[in-house]
Amino acid sequence: MTNICVDVEGSDLGREELSLGCINFVKENKDTKLTVVGNKEKLGDIFKGYEDQIEVVHASDVLPMHIDVNKVLHSKESSMVKGIYLSKQDNIDAFVTAGSSGGFLLASTVLIQRLKGIKRPAFCGPFFTKVKGKKTVILDIGASNENSVEDLVSFAKLGRAYAQLILNIENPSLYILSNGAEEGKGIDVVVKTYDALKEMNFPNFKGNVEARDVLDGEHDVIITQGFDGNILLKSVEGTAKLMNDMIKQAFKKNFLTKLGYLLAKSGFKEMKETLDYKKAGGAMLLGLKKVCVKAHGNSDRESFYYALKVAKQMVDMKVIDKFKQEFENDGQ
Amino acid sequence: MTNICVDVEGSDLGREELSLGCINFVKENKDTKLTVVGNKEKLGDIFKGYEDQIEVVHASDVLPMHIDVNKVLHSKESSMVKGIYLSKQDNIDAFVTAGSSGGFLLASTVLIQRLKGIKRPAFCGPFFTKVKGKKTVILDIGASNENSVEDLVSFAKLGRAYAQLILNIENPSLYILSNGAEEGKGIDVVVKTYDALKEMNFPNFKGNVEARDVLDGEHDVIITQGFDGNILLKSVEGTAKLMNDMIKQAFKKNFLTKLGYLLAKSGFKEMKETLDYKKAGGAMLLGLKKVCVKAHGNSDRESFYYALKVAKQMVDMKVIDKFKQEFENDGQ
Repeated sequence: MTNICVDVEGSDLGREELSLGCINFVKENKDTKLTVVGNKEKLGDIFKGYEDQIEVVHASDVLPMHIDVNKVLHSKESSMVKGIYLSKQDNIDAFVTAGSSGGFLLASTVLIQRLKGIKRPAFCGPFFTKVKGKKTVILDIGASNENSVEDLVSFAKLGRAYAQLILNIENPSLYILSNGAEEGKGIDVVVKTYDALKEMNFPNFKGNVEARDVLDGEHDVIITQGFDGNILLKSVEGTAKLMNDMIKQAFKKNFLTKLGYLLAKSGFKEMKETLDYKKAGGAMLLGLKKVCVKAHGNSDRESFYYALKVAKQMVDMKVIDKFKQEFENDGQ
Repeated sequence: MTNICVDVEGSDLGREELSLGCINFVKENKDTKLTVVGNKEKLGDIFKGYEDQIEVVHASDVLPMHIDVNKVLHSKESSMVKGIYLSKQDNIDAFVTAGSSGGFLLASTVLIQRLKGIKRPAFCGPFFTKVKGKKTVILDIGASNENSVEDLVSFAKLGRAYAQLILNIENPSLYILSNGAEEGKGIDVVVKTYDALKEMNFPNFKGNVEARDVLDGEHDVIITQGFDGNILLKSVEGTAKLMNDMIKQAFKKNFLTKLGYLLAKSGFKEMKETLDYKKAGGAMLLGLKKVCVKAHGNSDRESFYYALKVAKQMVDMKVIDKFKQEFENDGQ
């Protein structure tokens, strides 16, 4: 029986929305229990009828979006910190939250602890690409700002292991995000990481990739320092949103364009599915001794459902055990 | 009479394509002369009939895309370096090339020289936004990799002056690209630049902007270090291209979707115009004592025409004189 600890507080759309995602999830996953952390009074009887799969643990506080680093760990009554404390226990397999990224990162890193050899965990998001069904693993997309060469090399190992275990790619290709494809291009840490990976003969290391080629479906794993990965992620999201709005606008122009939409709708269905970020569920925080998933702050029930699904899949694939093997055998 | 020096070598589509852009340009700009630098023999009589407006200066070499920094200035027979030497003269008002960015940057910085108070020039691109006709000025998008606080402050001044002079925005709003909108977010140089701009009461400084909001049309000038600006630029380009391809694919799916396209076409026309990067012409290199424009390496005649137009517009607006005033009065 899988047991996932879920923080239902601190999201944009509120605890009810996330709770409905939890209910949909347990309905379809009879082998899974959820330990939901949240305000028990305010949740009321929302989980009535699902008591065999959902247990609620009361937390009176919510971690604010912007919180002083020093205060996070003292917020023991917040749903986030309480949930992460619970997730340290052996009977809990994963932790999922849609709350404050910063608080999540800090509390989970300190409380759950890092895998041997990992100095900094990384947010990892499988990006959609132009090739149907093909995802590209990009990390770090925002857990850190600046990273060292050592950090980036450990991101390469985490990304490779993730692509192998979860995406079933036998020998994933590895790239570094830079401002030119040629060797020697980029900021200092990029150039030095290139050299380090080359020097250590990192398996299937292919060099640099430019941001404009990231979505072409030809890259399995791309590493980047957190600040740049975050710019990449948000530029892609922002541009995709802008163009989606423009497409809607274009079809709404007049009677004829509306009619055109009805006829062309089937063609756009596939595009919509490819770009549907809800199914991504959220970003995994890789490098810790427990499965940790950060759902979007504005998750609705559907996207939260997918965040739970990502966590479950990682538990089922025994990703943490395999990561431990991987990094322990590595002699680091 | 405006005189623009044009390097027609070193582009992806070749000298003929760029030459046709030159011809279209002089046809519509009778008050402008072009000093075209290129292989005279190979150009043949392509400019026949336009000798009163186009003078060809022979250059036997082309600067390769990847050239050792130390070798650039010795490549005096390359069209790029020869063109930049010519552009130092008082009778030449601007320089335009579609050749090697690195070579262009290096040779122009050394030969043409920087404005007083500018340590590093910046590539500046007006980005399209979701608001029709509204452009956002973003710099640096790739002249540098890493930048100092001092560099970023001078980018802020250049960007402000450009937005005032060319885009006619009286009091442009200024933002720094970061991974969060709140003060204190971002890599070290971003946080320190924020503090410096706040400290000096930089006019209309509004704080950080996240990459996902860059295209929303609500920002006049955004500064960033070159590496990050380049990632932003190329992510936006890559995502826009991916989605354009998907739209085409969607309409091509079957007979009905094709019919749908015919009906909806008028709605998509405006979208196409907004996203048409060809009309952007290229990136301006700001911070030098002459108007310098870098056209896309894969420019066709149309986009090269627009690159020439950008140069002409900057000459007409006396941007360099105004920059000189701006930066000299600044007491730096």
